[in-house]
Amino acid sequence: MKCALTSGEDRHTGGRMPFTFRIKNECFRMVLAEMLSTYVMMTFGLGTVAQVVTGEGLFGGYLSINLGFALGVAMGVHIAGKVSGAHMNAAVSFTMCLFGRLAWRMFPVYVAAQMLGSFMAAGTVFSLYYDALVHYCGGNFTVSGPRATAGIFATYPAPYLSIPAGFLDQVVGTAMLLLCLMALSDQRNQPAQSGAEPIAVGLLVLLIGVSMGSNSGYAINPSRDLPPRIFTALAGWGPEVFRAGHSWWWVPLLAPLIGGVMGAAVYKLFIELHHPPLPRLYMAPPADTELEKTGTAEVCVTQA
Amino acid sequence: MKCALTSGEDRHTGGRMPFTFRIKNECFRMVLAEMLSTYVMMTFGLGTVAQVVTGEGLFGGYLSINLGFALGVAMGVHIAGKVSGAHMNAAVSFTMCLFGRLAWRMFPVYVAAQMLGSFMAAGTVFSLYYDALVHYCGGNFTVSGPRATAGIFATYPAPYLSIPAGFLDQVVGTAMLLLCLMALSDQRNQPAQSGAEPIAVGLLVLLIGVSMGSNSGYAINPSRDLPPRIFTALAGWGPEVFRAGHSWWWVPLLAPLIGGVMGAAVYKLFIELHHPPLPRLYMAPPADTELEKTGTAEVCVTQA
Amino acid sequence: MKCALTSGEDRHTGGRMPFTFRIKNECFRMVLAEMLSTYVMMTFGLGTVAQVVTGEGLFGGYLSINLGFALGVAMGVHIAGKVSGAHMNAAVSFTMCLFGRLAWRMFPVYVAAQMLGSFMAAGTVFSLYYDALVHYCGGNFTVSGPRATAGIFATYPAPYLSIPAGFLDQVVGTAMLLLCLMALSDQRNQPAQSGAEPIAVGLLVLLIGVSMGSNSGYAINPSRDLPPRIFTALAGWGPEVFRAGHSWWWVPLLAPLIGGVMGAAVYKLFIELHHPPLPRLYMAPPADTELEKTGTAEVCVTQA
Amino acid sequence: MKCALTSGEDRHTGGRMPFTFRIKNECFRMVLAEMLSTYVMMTFGLGTVAQVVTGEGLFGGYLSINLGFALGVAMGVHIAGKVSGAHMNAAVSFTMCLFGRLAWRMFPVYVAAQMLGSFMAAGTVFSLYYDALVHYCGGNFTVSGPRATAGIFATYPAPYLSIPAGFLDQVVGTAMLLLCLMALSDQRNQPAQSGAEPIAVGLLVLLIGVSMGSNSGYAINPSRDLPPRIFTALAGWGPEVFRAGHSWWWVPLLAPLIGGVMGAAVYKLFIELHHPPLPRLYMAPPADTELEKTGTAEVCVTQA
Repeated sequence: MKCALTSGEDRHTGGRMPFTFRIKNECFRMVLAEMLSTYVMMTFGLGTVAQVVTGEGLFGGYLSINLGFALGVAMGVHIAGKVSGAHMNAAVSFTMCLFGRLAWRMFPVYVAAQMLGSFMAAGTVFSLYYDALVHYCGGNFTVSGPRATAGIFATYPAPYLSIPAGFLDQVVGTAMLLLCLMALSDQRNQPAQSGAEPIAVGLLVLLIGVSMGSNSGYAINPSRDLPPRIFTALAGWGPEVFRAGHSWWWVPLLAPLIGGVMGAAVYKLFIELHHPPLPRLYMAPPADTELEKTGTAEVCVTQA
Repeated sequence: MKCALTSGEDRHTGGRMPFTFRIKNECFRMVLAEMLSTYVMMTFGLGTVAQVVTGEGLFGGYLSINLGFALGVAMGVHIAGKVSGAHMNAAVSFTMCLFGRLAWRMFPVYVAAQMLGSFMAAGTVFSLYYDALVHYCGGNFTVSGPRATAGIFATYPAPYLSIPAGFLDQVVGTAMLLLCLMALSDQRNQPAQSGAEPIAVGLLVLLIGVSMGSNSGYAINPSRDLPPRIFTALAGWGPEVFRAGHSWWWVPLLAPLIGGVMGAAVYKLFIELHHPPLPRLYMAPPADTELEKTGTAEVCVTQA
Repeated sequence: MKCALTSGEDRHTGGRMPFTFRIKNECFRMVLAEMLSTYVMMTFGLGTVAQVVTGEGLFGGYLSINLGFALGVAMGVHIAGKVSGAHMNAAVSFTMCLFGRLAWRMFPVYVAAQMLGSFMAAGTVFSLYYDALVHYCGGNFTVSGPRATAGIFATYPAPYLSIPAGFLDQVVGTAMLLLCLMALSDQRNQPAQSGAEPIAVGLLVLLIGVSMGSNSGYAINPSRDLPPRIFTALAGWGPEVFRAGHSWWWVPLLAPLIGGVMGAAVYKLFIELHHPPLPRLYMAPPADTELEKTGTAEVCVTQA
Repeated sequence: MKCALTSGEDRHTGGRMPFTFRIKNECFRMVLAEMLSTYVMMTFGLGTVAQVVTGEGLFGGYLSINLGFALGVAMGVHIAGKVSGAHMNAAVSFTMCLFGRLAWRMFPVYVAAQMLGSFMAAGTVFSLYYDALVHYCGGNFTVSGPRATAGIFATYPAPYLSIPAGFLDQVVGTAMLLLCLMALSDQRNQPAQSGAEPIAVGLLVLLIGVSMGSNSGYAINPSRDLPPRIFTALAGWGPEVFRAGHSWWWVPLLAPLIGGVMGAAVYKLFIELHHPPLPRLYMAPPADTELEKTGTAEVCVTQA
């Protein structure tokens, strides 16, 4: 992103603007982008589940849900990719912070924005499919049973799944996500085609959906799972949404953070660490200023 | 194509041509392109519905319909993208006019061209599947009932859907369409890959189909819905096509106009407005001539 | 294609080679490429139909067949695209000849190569699925009935389809194919992304499959239909393959030739004819030599 | 790949490094990449089969499996493409060696790495789906019968398939794979779009899955089939996994080696051999040093 605040001028201040203001402004637009992209991703994703469940087989099946989240993620990346990095996932933000690609002080801000967007998406899908929901379950919103609808919003484990196995499921799923995201963005290997990153990330999410979804609905993302769960708790499903599946709710919050870091570390250990040294000419200058660590890597360039 | 004109020569006039004529000529090719692209999109889209309905499960299902409209839109963009912008949708044209990307006086012309192409597509699909239609419903063209076929051409709401909920459904669907279209074309963010815009737009339509289609068939486009409805009224289904679904017909005409503007506005408010200022060097010159507002941005270049 | 026979040298002759020999050599590699690409496309396409039919619902459905032919065509374009143009379809070759993009004397050669490749593909699929075929139908190869298998190789119309309606079906299907192919290759409009042409053509074939396949199996290609039909006549299905469907066999031979020309003409009339004139600087030199008309447009460059 | 060991400096040794060490180091990272990419591809692929089998129709069908392996291969290419070439298939490595694109002494190393990655993937999927497996088959791991689960890990022929027909099936499948891979990488023809090679290879694997999978599960890869088979023999299915299908296990080991070479040879004979001679300027220098044959073609550049 070449945005290039040339020689102190700024559209907002009409001239030289205070240093701290610039950072706050930068931060503000990243938060807005993170919120909107998560909102769009979740509205499409949850909308697909709502359509498949209430459509009773006539409006798509499990593959539609995979497509809904996959393309939803792709659209989210289109919406925020070059502004906030379009994490839309607290586990991604956490891993990026741990590996120095995002400042830690941005972590709570990012997660809050994602959570807010995700909560609003749950509300949108609830409104959009309210008539269909009532028609499907007779107005009786339940977490389990033949006409259960809580699974439209948050994930629940299969009946056979123990909590440790579910924890492993979420660790492995998120590890595969981050491992492949590292590969897709490694410019010294075979990254996603320039400009087609949104589609590549979407296909990755599709892949995880077709291969690791049946155990517990592939949340692999705290920001995807908790806010819609809170929404359903408030909107008529009640506190059962936190008790169901042996109190499943905390697993998609914690496990993805661990899995994400593990997956990214595996890529670094097996691949990135062994890249041959770059010739001096192309070596990146040392990031020795505090400012450089403020935002994402892309944003840093604009503040140099 | 070897047509070749520099400063003042013209194939049609054999020399210098009047200024107004050039605009009319430009307008004419845009209308033709808009008509043909809408025709192709609708022929593929409606053809898929006809195939799925009359094929009784043997020739594709709901996902095929999503693919039919998605790839139909993609082919439409290939056909008219750099000529008319390939709106193929009155709600897109309306939003483009409102945000200054298309001259208002082009709006009725665009819509008329789209409507004409859409009507002709309904006729083509009717001819193509006439034998199949008669075989499927015994020659008794009905709007409702077990062998209803009106839904091949126009959209009808699910039985459970109230008119206000349906209105919301069309507003939200079109808002998501325009919000993402804005992102896909925002060159300062993460736009669709250069040259792959048709596929990106097609995937967006696929996404809306898998996530927001079961309530009322995701018309999200007046030009997609009204002309085939009129065609069926004339071709044997009768005035019932306007009465069905509590007189549903006006909802996909009006709601998309509102939703489209809302979606585009949300993108502008959350993302575009916060792009950092461009350096002076890259700032676009002010569009201060009347001529510049005649057509789409692409077309302007040819008139400079 | 930069093949660049520089200064009279040639790998095959070790020096200056006779003019006629060079043309023959060029012709030979185009024929080989056309044969191999058609073979690969047909082996994948027919293989998918064989798998779906003999798999009895366990190994894919109608959408798999659409994918099989779509991606088969894409692979065919990868195999012969820059050598012969990868027509793989007599209707495409016919249209290209009529619009001056291929020399008429290449037409019979191209068609013969396509037919040969298609026939060999039928043989390969027959061998590959022989055990499955015998298992499925008990060794009784029939054209109709509950365990009919002739439809694996050639197309047959639905029982309800009259010959005139089937003729229209093939005309429209091929017209849409060529109309969109013209758009995909029009460099002055919104063509297929450079380098992604094979995928774009594949998606077009997928689209025709989901929208225009149920009437008569979307042959839209004489080279796809006749050779496998002849193969089945010889391999055990007998002359019934030519009598079935009111002697359907000649329709996918003749109708695509007419439809292809119509579709390409519609694109030219509605879009290409109205492109604004090019500036003088980019005008192509007049094609005044006989040699230039020998092969496809790409090949001409190598002989200049 | 621009890795560029300029003028004897090295990150690992801090200066001039012995010649043999450099080769060993190069070899080591290729092995790691080959292992990780095969691991990722197989974890996604086998995971999809496990999900479809244990999901009993609710979590995807045969097309999901095709997508799982296709996108799994694509991610594998993203992970190792520019390091080891991302063969992930002993038949590909064998063919590359035979045609001089990989040194023979790398062959056992590559195959061992692939086998190890594949074995670890089987273990991962077994852990991930252990609860689901036990739930599905009641803890009774069998190779055949209504609740057989061995097919999740290794391939088994359809009951009707004779060994010779199965051998042909694997030869043809792998031949088509290599034939198309040759086309996708032939820069003088119509190769995969630059940067989109992973997707192109994935689509090829999808295509083989939809067209040549029902006979014996399209192993077309010794590294995909043997290690998971050994894993199941150890993990509870017992030696029956080697006896099943008339001792099928050796067919996907041997036949792909033959088929791969045949397919690549066909491409060379029909297409590559007939490319017009390059002009002198662009002719590649003769590969006359031993060093040049050490690794893959890409790696050679770094050692020049």
